[in-house]
Amino acid sequence: MLDPLLFGEIDPPQRLLMGPGPVNAHPRVLRAMSADLLGQFDPEMTAYMNQVMALYRPVFGTQNRWTMLIDGTARAGIEAALVSLVLPGETVLVVNFGRFGLLLQEILTRIGARFETVDAPWGEVVPMDAIRTAALRIRPRVIATVHGDTSTTMAQPLDGIGSIAREVGAFVYVDATATLGGMEIAADRWGADVITGGLQKCLGGPSGTAPITISDAAAEHIFTRRHDEKGIRAAGAVDGPAARIASNYFDLAMIMDYWSEKRLNHHTEATTMLYGARECARIALAEGLPARFARHKAAGAAMSAGLRAMGLTLFGEDAHRMTNVTGVYIPAGVDGESVRAMMREAFEIEIGTAFGPLVGKVWRLGAMGYNAMKHKVLLTLAALEATLQAHGHAVPLGEAVPAALAAWDATV
Amino acid sequence: MLDPLLFGEIDPPQRLLMGPGPVNAHPRVLRAMSADLLGQFDPEMTAYMNQVMALYRPVFGTQNRWTMLIDGTARAGIEAALVSLVLPGETVLVVNFGRFGLLLQEILTRIGARFETVDAPWGEVVPMDAIRTAALRIRPRVIATVHGDTSTTMAQPLDGIGSIAREVGAFVYVDATATLGGMEIAADRWGADVITGGLQKCLGGPSGTAPITISDAAAEHIFTRRHDEKGIRAAGAVDGPAARIASNYFDLAMIMDYWSEKRLNHHTEATTMLYGARECARIALAEGLPARFARHKAAGAAMSAGLRAMGLTLFGEDAHRMTNVTGVYIPAGVDGESVRAMMREAFEIEIGTAFGPLVGKVWRLGAMGYNAMKHKVLLTLAALEATLQAHGHAVPLGEAVPAALAAWDATV
Repeated sequence: MLDPLLFGEIDPPQRLLMGPGPVNAHPRVLRAMSADLLGQFDPEMTAYMNQVMALYRPVFGTQNRWTMLIDGTARAGIEAALVSLVLPGETVLVVNFGRFGLLLQEILTRIGARFETVDAPWGEVVPMDAIRTAALRIRPRVIATVHGDTSTTMAQPLDGIGSIAREVGAFVYVDATATLGGMEIAADRWGADVITGGLQKCLGGPSGTAPITISDAAAEHIFTRRHDEKGIRAAGAVDGPAARIASNYFDLAMIMDYWSEKRLNHHTEATTMLYGARECARIALAEGLPARFARHKAAGAAMSAGLRAMGLTLFGEDAHRMTNVTGVYIPAGVDGESVRAMMREAFEIEIGTAFGPLVGKVWRLGAMGYNAMKHKVLLTLAALEATLQAHGHAVPLGEAVPAALAAWDATV
Repeated sequence: MLDPLLFGEIDPPQRLLMGPGPVNAHPRVLRAMSADLLGQFDPEMTAYMNQVMALYRPVFGTQNRWTMLIDGTARAGIEAALVSLVLPGETVLVVNFGRFGLLLQEILTRIGARFETVDAPWGEVVPMDAIRTAALRIRPRVIATVHGDTSTTMAQPLDGIGSIAREVGAFVYVDATATLGGMEIAADRWGADVITGGLQKCLGGPSGTAPITISDAAAEHIFTRRHDEKGIRAAGAVDGPAARIASNYFDLAMIMDYWSEKRLNHHTEATTMLYGARECARIALAEGLPARFARHKAAGAAMSAGLRAMGLTLFGEDAHRMTNVTGVYIPAGVDGESVRAMMREAFEIEIGTAFGPLVGKVWRLGAMGYNAMKHKVLLTLAALEATLQAHGHAVPLGEAVPAALAAWDATV
């Protein structure tokens, strides 16, 4: 047994996290999180909550009033969206092109919804006309999709998905965990009703709170399921006509009321995480979203060019590559886990392994948020080159860094 | 519309939070949370996870292997426990003596469980023989109770509840959100199978992660519902025989596998909150749990004595008062919200309002975690005395502080 009294102060190694996330947080975010706490209904606290709502609207590309945080990791946001939007027995069309499309299906099964999928092989995306054909056939309540699926490093184009949804009377749900703050999220232009994200990827913060935006139409639908819990229910409160949401914690009707001027006492907001989320968005908006997206694009282009200059083969379609994470085949004869271990132990750099069909075949290299920087991409490539060399893999020496530098400079 | 670019740096007022929680975090906790992040499967990260397990065993008074964190606020822990333990249609006996007993009922209704209650009026607790009588009659799957219910400031005695549960073949669930780290939690001695808590009360940290402990018997039961999600399911994985847990996020079978040497990739652990939880427990164990409980007891006794010396009447039974939060009747003719506003604006001290039947009738004054300190109790009492005087309420002047000081000294 470990003796708890022997554990020292927190003192993690200063590691560069160049995998698919989490990545290193921006130091300003961690400093903001060290501010002292406030009572949850203190006027300064509710002012910070309102500021968070305002800060995340541009981040999501929306005017939606209901733009806030779900207290939990990114998948808390996903589950809150689905359990609140979809009633048991209703059908959802899932756009499925990777592990996180499978997660959507898993959550839907657990909440008693039905689903059908429109699929692409891992490494590709689903054509919009295939989504439309499926939607016309299935007439789903919700079309649910991932934006960027880190398991395959592909980003699903979403322009036009809203008009398909309007055509069949569906809502659109988008999981933008891996792209929010790094690639353009355009809730209003896409016509997406609910989008959720996380801090630990392109926003450069820690995992633990999930930004969400909800269209007025989706909010109206969710409020038909309104049921204020016992203990805080106002006298004469009236339930909505539709079935109660099967989760109390993820009840978006109550959570919206908590973030409204009603200040319904649902949970105790995770204040420190809220401070962090606020700072993530302030940093992103101060940089400017177009500049931020360009920086991620340059980082992805540099990483791709450097890997190719090493003679490695990228995974997946070039046309739909996420800018912030790149999949690359592990060369034949190289032990992928041994390379990752040497990267970590000799260089204090983490690169990612893979899931499902790609386990042992692909590494995933991220450059996102605070780590989507030229020097971090170059250092990672230089370390990988040296590590492959040390593993006896013939790699053209001195090619990766200049190729990456050229690609960066050509992109920005 | 608020202009997001106008928001400045985070800069909350330095307020003393003497309500029912959240309270001010211990500065060491906030500093620990500013450490840089780690990859979720980096050996240093999994070592920190194992340390957290070891640190929270004594905090919960248990040897339970499965002692860990649920990423979310305290009610995330409650919902994870209930949705994983209780199958739809099963019956739970709820020990109901305040708002958070109502919350247990609310969650059970939403997950499709049945429940019966054994009740006490607000301000009292439920006698153990009433629990036994009800359990023998109902034969529930789970006996669920709150330990300290901040809505009433009462602490339910729990010695003996385990043997009642064994007699009828039930599990015991305890919500210890408001007492963990401040009053003794004795999972093993009580015979409680699952206990959950939060950081933002007696542990002196921010809301946002929920410590949980699970007995081997409860874990075995939960694993009968095992269903690894699509996308990370090992080839040949076998589902448990019992019904799948209705939530993916709160699936304790997957969460236990994530915290085990299997390191199943469920969510991305909220690293910064984990650093904070680790520091909360380190501080508590370094102080020594008996000393910590005595400090909370002294703070509660001092607060009670001071309030009584002001001529105020406490709410609820003396015999079952929580040590860390005290309810007091608002004197006739005094505007309770005006007093709270002056306490906040003139003294930067927050005291709490109340819920449900006690709204407008009772204030709740907390002294917990980093705020269960002599000087903070004395300052709060002195400020309240001056505030009542300013409100034209005849209060014996100069009585509260010496009475509190005497009570503190008599207790420790």
